[in-house]
Amino acid sequence: MRIGAIEAGGTKFVCGIGNEHGVIEDRIHFPTELPEQTMFRVISYFESHQVDAIGIGAFGPLDLRPDSSTYGYITTTPKAGWAQYPFLDTLRSHYEVPYGWDTDVNAAAFGEAAWGAAKGLDSCVYYTVGTGVGAGVYAEGRLIHGMVHPEGGHVPIRRLPEDDFSGVCPFHQECLEGMASGPAIEARWKRKGSELPADHPAWSMEAHYIAQAVSGTILMLSPQKVILGGGVMQQSQLFPMVRKEVCRYLNGYVQAEALLEDMDNYIVPPALGAEAGLYGALALGLEAWKKSKALP
Amino acid sequence: MRIGAIEAGGTKFVCGIGNEHGVIEDRIHFPTELPEQTMFRVISYFESHQVDAIGIGAFGPLDLRPDSSTYGYITTTPKAGWAQYPFLDTLRSHYEVPYGWDTDVNAAAFGEAAWGAAKGLDSCVYYTVGTGVGAGVYAEGRLIHGMVHPEGGHVPIRRLPEDDFSGVCPFHQECLEGMASGPAIEARWKRKGSELPADHPAWSMEAHYIAQAVSGTILMLSPQKVILGGGVMQQSQLFPMVRKEVCRYLNGYVQAEALLEDMDNYIVPPALGAEAGLYGALALGLEAWKKSKALP
Repeated sequence: MRIGAIEAGGTKFVCGIGNEHGVIEDRIHFPTELPEQTMFRVISYFESHQVDAIGIGAFGPLDLRPDSSTYGYITTTPKAGWAQYPFLDTLRSHYEVPYGWDTDVNAAAFGEAAWGAAKGLDSCVYYTVGTGVGAGVYAEGRLIHGMVHPEGGHVPIRRLPEDDFSGVCPFHQECLEGMASGPAIEARWKRKGSELPADHPAWSMEAHYIAQAVSGTILMLSPQKVILGGGVMQQSQLFPMVRKEVCRYLNGYVQAEALLEDMDNYIVPPALGAEAGLYGALALGLEAWKKSKALP
Repeated sequence: MRIGAIEAGGTKFVCGIGNEHGVIEDRIHFPTELPEQTMFRVISYFESHQVDAIGIGAFGPLDLRPDSSTYGYITTTPKAGWAQYPFLDTLRSHYEVPYGWDTDVNAAAFGEAAWGAAKGLDSCVYYTVGTGVGAGVYAEGRLIHGMVHPEGGHVPIRRLPEDDFSGVCPFHQECLEGMASGPAIEARWKRKGSELPADHPAWSMEAHYIAQAVSGTILMLSPQKVILGGGVMQQSQLFPMVRKEVCRYLNGYVQAEALLEDMDNYIVPPALGAEAGLYGALALGLEAWKKSKALP
């Protein structure tokens, strides 16, 4: 069996071909341009690689409601050309295969649950902290959507008293993305995060804000694993700092061994690294194929 | 068919008998005393009312992991006599029927999803705001548990600048329960909430804190309905205030009709009123019965 995987990011697309064992055998990537150009490259790729199903994890917001007339669309994105773009219909007009369709962060959570850090668990939350901040939620063995889909990058957080930065989110004062995304770090400290030394005060502040959101998520959802990915989390010194801040906030309230005794294995980087989203798209494609065959 | 329902609250137990159509035909309530006395009354009630299954929504924290040796226990509660109490085993030793077992707030969410404000939807979040604050989460057609179970009353919130109250939670500075529970209102204003007039500044502060948590939940989980119950929410003037504050925070970011145009039907009181938990216990019992018969 061959499953196609598309990680449709705001700056980069990755297409791949994999199998039901979570092995990706081929991949290609190219920059995200206007939809016509970008989708032409996607379609060309799958013309030379026949597949039984395709899974897609895409930048959003997306229409994920199967009964909606705009199901499969990218909806209100500010990204030029992509607003109200019928992503799934475009592919469907070329390839009649089962499709899996979800957000990039839900895909990453699903990939980690299938073959990564949350393998064998029935819940995890995946955060990406980079140019944007997003959260994918996997609970009780399935991805969570609800009314639209999680937008966990925009949860309210409380400002540290020593931080007078105004935030970069045009919608919210003091949301996680506004205060802790890559662009927020750069705007606050006038240097890119990648140029700041590991002991710069930027990182303890960053860890504090991420830990607030993670603490809230642990209390609200009690995931079995919290996975932190994205460009900012390449700063590996953040992991022990985030863990410590989460412990400090929870203060022993949640009586779970994972939190009390094994935090190093509870808040972790993606086991699939930067490819969590691509593996997740593969897992979405596989799930779509199974559904089409009425397999569990 | 007759299904037993037990709403095991920290101050009051309610036992009832209902059917698969969500009709409760008989009910009894009594204060929560020591387990021996209280469970004696529960067992006596079901001796005179034979049932095919029993559902329980209980105060926690609880052990909900079916593979755990202490599954069915109330675990680390400070309530005298109830810590590490084998609730389910005690009932099982008297009645061999299928049991449903979940938190009081998950039960309430489930009741509202079965027969209340979220009927026909596949997601909702139920908050109780009273002596304690808790949250039940229903998503993708099932109750969410994860590692332990949601403890949404303890999510971090940010203090209003004009509020110098230190909070009543012994674990967290500035969590929702610590700042917005009934005891927090009483400690802050030196009067019970029920004695404060509807235009007292306590209520705008209360609405602000509840709205913070609700906004975070909408962003993280995108529930199709948010239901606010519990003693404090008897102050019905809170509903329009909470809705307004949630709109103010979200600021149009989440493009969903329910939020942009129909907030009055999105953040609502429980349709089952104070009996959401009892109906939820009935729904849990019915689910357990169906599972035992391998019905969907």
